[in-house]
Amino acid sequence: MSQKSALLIIGNEILSGRTQDQNAQFIGEKMAAHGIPLSEVRIVPDIESKIIEALNTLRSTYDFVFTTGGIGPTHDDITSATVAKAFNLPFERHPQADQTLSDYYDEGEYTDARATMAYMPQGAKLIPNPVSGAPGFNVENVYVMAGVPRIMQAMLGNVLAQITAGEKIMSNAVACDLQESVVAKGLGEIQNQYDDIDIGSYPNFRGGVLSVSIVLRGTSADSIKKATNDVLTLIQSLNGNIISESYEVSVK
Amino acid sequence: MSQKSALLIIGNEILSGRTQDQNAQFIGEKMAAHGIPLSEVRIVPDIESKIIEALNTLRSTYDFVFTTGGIGPTHDDITSATVAKAFNLPFERHPQADQTLSDYYDEGEYTDARATMAYMPQGAKLIPNPVSGAPGFNVENVYVMAGVPRIMQAMLGNVLAQITAGEKIMSNAVACDLQESVVAKGLGEIQNQYDDIDIGSYPNFRGGVLSVSIVLRGTSADSIKKATNDVLTLIQSLNGNIISESYEVSVK
Repeated sequence: MSQKSALLIIGNEILSGRTQDQNAQFIGEKMAAHGIPLSEVRIVPDIESKIIEALNTLRSTYDFVFTTGGIGPTHDDITSATVAKAFNLPFERHPQADQTLSDYYDEGEYTDARATMAYMPQGAKLIPNPVSGAPGFNVENVYVMAGVPRIMQAMLGNVLAQITAGEKIMSNAVACDLQESVVAKGLGEIQNQYDDIDIGSYPNFRGGVLSVSIVLRGTSADSIKKATNDVLTLIQSLNGNIISESYEVSVK
Repeated sequence: MSQKSALLIIGNEILSGRTQDQNAQFIGEKMAAHGIPLSEVRIVPDIESKIIEALNTLRSTYDFVFTTGGIGPTHDDITSATVAKAFNLPFERHPQADQTLSDYYDEGEYTDARATMAYMPQGAKLIPNPVSGAPGFNVENVYVMAGVPRIMQAMLGNVLAQITAGEKIMSNAVACDLQESVVAKGLGEIQNQYDDIDIGSYPNFRGGVLSVSIVLRGTSADSIKKATNDVLTLIQSLNGNIISESYEVSVK
């Protein structure tokens, strides 16, 4: 049974539409490539009870849980204290985080407000932040990261270097000028022959004309290759034309 | 007590990072303006048990629940059948949806594959789709919409015309060239004075320099105005400069 991950996005600004989240897509791609696919995402507001409820469900359901957002120095940054509560751990000034922040700032610039970012659940392991100093942290299977995409991406790189990769999930994609309803029956028949791959179909508008992208994903290169060839045969039999194709697994 | 909404995004393509979701941001903005803010988002894969679990939790927790994705004609479009199961309702060919689709397509083009899009939970109310024909539907407090943004947006417009608006949530935003940690203490003090507004602070990188956006949100124009003026005074007292400002509520 392959391992699975989940993401908890914390922040009113995402729910209000003020900010377009970019972290779910980035983490989704990276985790698929790392063989521990993202299997659920939740977005919750900066409300303690909502964060605790979501975090405790996700961490007991999935092998790895990432959080983004809410670890800065202001009153609405409640993630770190809330994660401590969720784990029933003391929330205290973390000696190594304290040292990291004190080293990062110039003499006299390590203020009380900045020192709040050194508070973490007792025993947390740090996630280095090469971009802006303040580290994220890890408790058990939970990885607490910043919400700013550039910082989160740097942190995730450091996290993934420590997590043993699973079987990489590969994908092939074919877009054609047929409508989704035209390929539907044949595609369902192909899916039924391969229980180790997922075949998805996604309608597009291109210049007002409906077309469809067919995506085949899985860890078996052999199955992806065979199923992709079946899809190409299906498209040909329906007199469709390929608009674009992208093969991580060769179809030759 | 104001009403709240939630969004359930259904689709492997979002979790794998293949597709960047745009619907959460759009719906978040629209629902804040409609006074029924989005309070939680979940993204789940095309797996029946995961959809049912999330949907049943959300529909018993929030006043309105929207779903996006999975209502097309292919094998991976399992949303409609799964919503019927979640409500324990028969899943059957819906006479009005059947008529709508049959009218939409040219003679002979209303195929069996397309007819699958006429299957809905018994008694569902249709959500018109002016873009591509196939309707969404509503059962109790759940609104099932397409995943393609253009279609979803048209459907949401039709839904909101039927839902009585709550008190509009207004927001003011001020960005300044101070770092978040510099405004942290004063901002926390301002937040403590206004329990009817939410003050958020969001760090930015602008040309490699850290700055901060401060956003004030709520339904009371008076509180937003007063708190915004307090924030402007705070920035001035810290020798900060305004980089940008956007006031839905005048600060004069």
